[in-house]
This record gives sequence, structure tokens and C-alpha cells, in this order.
Amino acid sequence: MQPLKAIINGRLLLDNEATLSIHDLSVTRGYGIFDYFKTVDGRPIFWEDSLDRFFHSAQLMDLPVPYTRTELKDQIQTLMQANQIADSGIKLLLTGGDSPDGYSIGIPNLIITQHPLQRNADKEQNGIKLITYAYHRPFSRVKSTDYVMGIQALKKAKAAGAEDVVYVQHGLLSECPRANIFLIDKDGTLITPEEDVLAGVTRRYILEMARPHMKVETRNVTLEDMTNASEAFISSTTKNITPVLQIDDVVYGKQPGPHTRMLQSLLNQLIYDREAASATHLP
Amino acid sequence: MQPLKAIINGRLLLDNEATLSIHDLSVTRGYGIFDYFKTVDGRPIFWEDSLDRFFHSAQLMDLPVPYTRTELKDQIQTLMQANQIADSGIKLLLTGGDSPDGYSIGIPNLIITQHPLQRNADKEQNGIKLITYAYHRPFSRVKSTDYVMGIQALKKAKAAGAEDVVYVQHGLLSECPRANIFLIDKDGTLITPEEDVLAGVTRRYILEMARPHMKVETRNVTLEDMTNASEAFISSTTKNITPVLQIDDVVYGKQPGPHTRMLQSLLNQLIYDREAASATHLP
Repeated sequence: MQPLKAIINGRLLLDNEATLSIHDLSVTRGYGIFDYFKTVDGRPIFWEDSLDRFFHSAQLMDLPVPYTRTELKDQIQTLMQANQIADSGIKLLLTGGDSPDGYSIGIPNLIITQHPLQRNADKEQNGIKLITYAYHRPFSRVKSTDYVMGIQALKKAKAAGAEDVVYVQHGLLSECPRANIFLIDKDGTLITPEEDVLAGVTRRYILEMARPHMKVETRNVTLEDMTNASEAFISSTTKNITPVLQIDDVVYGKQPGPHTRMLQSLLNQLIYDREAASATHLP
Repeated sequence: MQPLKAIINGRLLLDNEATLSIHDLSVTRGYGIFDYFKTVDGRPIFWEDSLDRFFHSAQLMDLPVPYTRTELKDQIQTLMQANQIADSGIKLLLTGGDSPDGYSIGIPNLIITQHPLQRNADKEQNGIKLITYAYHRPFSRVKSTDYVMGIQALKKAKAAGAEDVVYVQHGLLSECPRANIFLIDKDGTLITPEEDVLAGVTRRYILEMARPHMKVETRNVTLEDMTNASEAFISSTTKNITPVLQIDDVVYGKQPGPHTRMLQSLLNQLIYDREAASATHLP
């Protein structure tokens, strides 16, 4: 493979030579937003949704995006052309920029990077274990770069033999640090938190796909819901639908349940089946 | 003035040419810690306390510091020698480093910067106004680079004609985004929150200085305490003791009160009076 390229402020350059000032507000104050989508077989997947959310996050964080949507898409395509990675993750990162006083927002820097991305077939097939973690992400509608708690929580998860954590506060489940969470109750109803969680793109498509097949509830999800559920899974761009077999001491089964499998199959069709994908267009 | 210098990983270079990889975990995940002290007339003030806290923050965030304390002090002195700024702020920043997988901690980068720093005599003399803001800083013992909420809150403060905010959650005051908060009650007792706040260096010296002169309570501080107080002030390395004349609708007075003035005078002696400073050594 040729050396990776990246784009900073519209300029294509070698990824490993791409740098930011040490005074950028992303470095000094953790102030930045990003978004992320993948390419499968060279096709960008759900990138319109990702761009929608990128502009929305930027607005909520008072960061002016220095390019139009069309210009961003052109830059992304330039990068894809330069890197030639069929299966990849593409990240748009918008930083707070060099601050005049070390605190107020400067002129944002826009960074686009791409890296090879493979599915984790083992986890999608065999499922994972989670533990609960007492936290609630502030500013949860923004896809910000604030992952301090997620990185710290991962340490606890690994120590407990789990893959990751799910945040719980005041008895309510919200989300995983990098994924949305879903439960399926004993009646086969799909349940996922609605308030104060990241508006996951994969989450959105799962809900759309599920509606013709099962009852869907987006609402507060309690620890009691978690205990009484018969299946659970998480979703994200990289994780697709990854079954959850256990949360803390609550065991859902030795293998993923039938509803999870059915939704995995629908999502696979939408994302990985080129013919089905070109024929499908969700609103 | 000659161009500013900075030190990255032990190497002295021009501040405006100092950069970090776009993949540093501080950029991509907001993962980093820092500390900050000032020089007055070329004398580093309370830098031992600042270094103590720096190593403590690094440890709590699982970031190995790539230098010994002695090496860090040598680097700081090299930078002070190079920049020749008598009155300055010096910041040590330790980042999560280039992550192998974009999420786990890499090999930290250590950045030392220095910039000219002048006292804000007007605010120290005439006081400021604050508003309360519903938030609580997670991981509050760590001086992390996570200031997203502080920067957002500042916008609200400015809109309300205030200087900054003080965080309140569950009826308890904790701290300002970049300062500790103190109240003085009607009996002349100095009160400041103890739990879940940054261990401010200036805060520590204020408490030590105050004890011979007044009753001191470090404990939970409620909204009722705030309402009933007769004086208030905030403290930080850059703000010293800055009087607070009003929080929300609670007005403490048109000018700073006598206890605040007395503590300002003691702190001034400790920090700005060279002879007093050289004779004073707090435990």
C-alpha cells in the first residue's frame, strides 16, 4: 500500500507529516468535534447522515465549518482517490483552532483522515460482554472529542473481562462510549434510549429497518429493563450490530438471540450487499 | 522581545513552529493533562506544588511522565533562560500520544510553553460577577484538558454580563471552570468546597494563610451558603484572589469586603513581595 494521505484545511499531504499547532484548542482544551463513516468496496456508507451530524455538532459547539458541504464531499473524494482503500474509515475532525487567549475559540482547523477498516467478524458472530459504568456524557448530542471517561472506563471493562462499558446514571442506561445500546424485551419489542444519547447513524437505520418487523420503543431505558431483557446488542459504524451476551451479572444467553440475528441480516443487506444497497434508499 | 520558544519532548524550538501529530490522543480524544504556574520577577511561584499535581494528574490518567522531576525542572529553567520573560505563565502539558488504535494511550508527548502574564489589576481591585451553571466536572481531581463545558458556559456568562460561571450540581457549589471559589459567612468564617474540586495551589495557600486569622471550613457548600454569605471570591494562579460581588441575583456588595481585602493583602505579600516571599516558606 502507498503511504497514507490526509487533508488539512483543503491541502492533501502525507498522513504521518500532518500536524497541528500545540496551541490548537483541541490540544490545550479538548475542544473539537468529529464525525466518521466507512467505505465498503469503495462506496461511502451513510455519509450524508454523517455530514448532517458533523455540521450539527459544529453548530452546537460554535465552530464555523470553513467549507461548504459540496467542498467537503469533494475533499473526501480527493482523499479516497489518493488513498485507494476500498474498505476504510473516514474521519472529519474540526478543532477549536489557535486561540488568541488560550481559551476562546479561534479559526477552526479541518482534518480529514482515512484508514483501512476490517469488520470484527468474531465479535459480530459471537457477541461480547459489557459492564455498567456510572457516568453520563454531558453535551451528548454533540460528537465531541471528549473521550476521557470512555478511555478510563475501558480499563475497568478489561479488568472485568468485558469488551466495554454502558453508561448508567440515575438508574437509566444511556449509551456506550462509542456505540448505541439496544435491548429486546420478552415480547420481542426493540427498546433503545432516546434522550441524551448520540444520534447514531447506524442506530437510525436499525430503527427504520426494524419497524416493519417488530414493535419499536425509543424511551428511557431502566436497569430493570436491562435485567428483564431477553437480548441486547450495540451498534456503531465500525461495530455494525454486535450482540451483547451479558451486562454485569445479567446473562442473555450463550449465543446471540433470534431478533438480533434477524436485524444483523437486514443491516448486512443494507451495507454490504452492493445490489441490495443500490436498490435501497431509506428516507 | 525575541520570538517565543517552547520545549517538546526535551527539545527547545520556536513556539510557533511547535506541532503535534493530528493522531495524538489529545487531538482525537481530548486526552491530556497539564499544570500551570507563574513566574514573578523571574521567580517561579509555587512550582513545587504545581509539579506535585502534574505527576498526580498523570498517574490518575495512566500517562507515564517521560522525565524525572529534576529533568523537568531543568527543562523549565532552560526555557526560562531562553525566553527571558520576568512575569510569565508556564504550562506543562502531557498528551495521550500517538495511539496505536486511535483509542488506547500511546507514548505521551510533553510540551512546556511560556507566555507573558500580567495581573488583571482592575478585576482584583473591583471584583467580578458570576452566574451559576448546572454542571459538575467529572474526574475533578485531575487537571485535564477537558474544558468543553467551561468554554460553553463562558458564553452564557458573557450573555448575562458576568465574568464566568460557578458549577452547581444537586444544590452544591463545586468550582469555577478555571478557579476555586470561597465564601465568607456572616460570622467571618471562610468556607470552600472540599470534595470533587481541583486541588488549587492558590486555594491551598489561602487556606494556610487564613487559619491564624479566621475560622476556616472546607466542606460541602450549598446554594443556601451562597445566598447567606457576606463575601465571596475566586482564586487561581492568574486571578490571585479576585473578589466576587454578585452570583446570580445574590449581591454581596458594591465593593469587595474586608475579609477578602485582608486575604488579598496576605497573598500579595506571599507572591509579589520578594523579601517577604524569600522569608516565607509554607509547609
